[in-house]
Amino acid sequence: MALSTDFTELLGVRHPIALAPMAGAAGGALAAAVSRAGGLGLVGGGYGEPDWLERELSVVARGTDRPWGVGFLAWAVDVRAVERALAFRPAAVMLSFGDPGPFVDRVRDASAAVLIQVTDVEEARRAVDLGADVIVAQGTESGGHGARRGRSTFPFVPLVADLAAPVPVLAAGGIGDGRGVAAALALGAAGALIGTRFQATTEASVGSAVREALLEGRGQDTERNGVLDIARGSSWPVERYTARTLGHPYLDQWRDRESELARDGNAPLKYRDDVARGVIPAEPVWAGEAVDLITDLPSAAELVTTLAAQAEDVLTRAGRRQPADGSHTAG
Amino acid sequence: MALSTDFTELLGVRHPIALAPMAGAAGGALAAAVSRAGGLGLVGGGYGEPDWLERELSVVARGTDRPWGVGFLAWAVDVRAVERALAFRPAAVMLSFGDPGPFVDRVRDASAAVLIQVTDVEEARRAVDLGADVIVAQGTESGGHGARRGRSTFPFVPLVADLAAPVPVLAAGGIGDGRGVAAALALGAAGALIGTRFQATTEASVGSAVREALLEGRGQDTERNGVLDIARGSSWPVERYTARTLGHPYLDQWRDRESELARDGNAPLKYRDDVARGVIPAEPVWAGEAVDLITDLPSAAELVTTLAAQAEDVLTRAGRRQPADGSHTAG
Ligand SMILES: Cc1cc2nc3c(=O)[nH]c(=O)nc-3n(C[C@H](O)[C@H](O)[C@H](O)COP(=O)(O)O)c2cc1C
Ligand SMILES: Cc1cc2nc3c(=O)[nH]c(=O)nc-3n(C[C@H](O)[C@H](O)[C@H](O)COP(=O)(O)O)c2cc1C
Repeated sequence: MALSTDFTELLGVRHPIALAPMAGAAGGALAAAVSRAGGLGLVGGGYGEPDWLERELSVVARGTDRPWGVGFLAWAVDVRAVERALAFRPAAVMLSFGDPGPFVDRVRDASAAVLIQVTDVEEARRAVDLGADVIVAQGTESGGHGARRGRSTFPFVPLVADLAAPVPVLAAGGIGDGRGVAAALALGAAGALIGTRFQATTEASVGSAVREALLEGRGQDTERNGVLDIARGSSWPVERYTARTLGHPYLDQWRDRESELARDGNAPLKYRDDVARGVIPAEPVWAGEAVDLITDLPSAAELVTTLAAQAEDVLTRAGRRQPADGSHTAG
Repeated sequence: MALSTDFTELLGVRHPIALAPMAGAAGGALAAAVSRAGGLGLVGGGYGEPDWLERELSVVARGTDRPWGVGFLAWAVDVRAVERALAFRPAAVMLSFGDPGPFVDRVRDASAAVLIQVTDVEEARRAVDLGADVIVAQGTESGGHGARRGRSTFPFVPLVADLAAPVPVLAAGGIGDGRGVAAALALGAAGALIGTRFQATTEASVGSAVREALLEGRGQDTERNGVLDIARGSSWPVERYTARTLGHPYLDQWRDRESELARDGNAPLKYRDDVARGVIPAEPVWAGEAVDLITDLPSAAELVTTLAAQAEDVLTRAGRRQPADGSHTAG
């Protein structure tokens, strides 16, 4: 008996669980494993790099005959990247961060579901207007990029669910175990989209240093900031979107001095130099507050199965206390 | 059939719902109404002002024969204030913000339950060590005061629940309807402590301007900041705790310039003057992100009943989609 929602129904998946399309971390192998286990695996198409996309989408398309999808950063890609992906016949394309407008019709014409990730009410309204099939409501506790002035998942999800109804909503941000999946459904979402927790699976494309950091990291050591994007010389629109990462020497050095850092034309060179000299890690560890709940490195299939089973169990038992003598209460 | 948890069991209340002890807003009438309706009403004892306490605790003690309690700001009160309250035989005393250590034994000696509100893992550990009977895990989306560098409710609650077990935990911050109560239970909490939403009830001690603001206010317009405490000349320890309020002219003026404002010895005088001249409202509107979910002004009893019924309904139905033809699915 699996949990059934408007999302599982629409996408034809068994569990109300989606893998976040994490640029870098979510390649074809991870997405395929999630889809085979009954979730919706989304490849992290990110910036739409053609060779990477070609390779990873081949992997996922060969790796599963269940529905899978791919996600893109709307501010970073052009329509051609999305079209290249559609040639692989994904069941869903997710668009995040920036204007999804230019891509929606192409996705719909290819009979793929349009998923739009939103971080505030205005973005949610726009997603509804564009006819999104699924809206992902992302809270500020999420790992990786999100709104600089973000909303928290707990109050944001019911707000978006009401605004979007009957369009199904996925909750994203802070979900680390089956309790979180169950809570997402309780809040009115039709499922959970999960990033940070899936980075700590055997199929995630992350190095062992990142795996270790995720196992040891604490939510209270994560921080949402624009410093690392500016320092790396990335073209992220940092006035609007910042990234949540674990601690990093540059954060201590530049926190609250972003504009000063932005004015320093040599910063990206210095950053690369500091990486080369081993002064700072090769990559920031993108992670959300749910990193606290990561205590093992399962396979993606095990994780999906455990999350779904826990969620179902939680919804059956919550608020129905078992008396200490072990006999069941009527409720 | 009501929801039953370790919290309802321990306190002997019908619903897993507690009124936050909001200084100012939660007087004896509101607390009594919540307790009569089957929740746990907590009077906002705040700074322990003796005359106010005497009056409001008389009101609640006369107003209900169900369990009720009172909350204090640990940094602001002395043991005598707590002792004065204990004379009224509350079933619970809640301690928030600051060191609860000096008060715990007195409360326990009076056979009242010790509730401790925590905003991070260290405070949660300390609460466990002190032998708290119930721990309230407060997320940063909450209204009123909370940690300056706060955790979000969604990932914070399961973390504290694991750390505190078997001590029951209440979730606080961002809960505005029955979906939130259900989600709190799903996350591993034994109940929900609710502030902002209860301010918009007929029994809350707030003026009509505040009621209007709560009905119209949007979560995205709330902001956690130390500016208003500094400007008012309050003695809140603002390096550690800030307050979430709706928009305020002083926030626009002083945001990110707290230390400058703190150095201006005339600020509190100027603040009072601006209030007198009607340039700024008499009081900030303390409100959390859940303010979005406030659309009516029910009585506290109606609110408790609705929250509990919705929560039960949500837990019964979440993840068990009803097919469009109306027949019931097996799950
Ligand atoms: C390592 C990492 C990379 C991410 N990259 C992307 C991305 O490329 N595109 C995107 O839409 N979201 C990206 N996100 C955000 C996720 O879509 C999602 O909102 C987030 O992971 C949910 O919060 P959680 O990490 O607490 O599960 C990324 C998140 C992480 C942790
Ligand atoms: C108007 C107001 C006043 C508050 N005063 C207190 C207080 O005196 N003592 C306290 O422990 N918490 C106080 N809080 C915080 C609550 O205990 C609780 O953490 C918060 O209301 C939960 O978040 P919510 O507002 O989203 O429900 C106050 C909250 C509000 C909204």
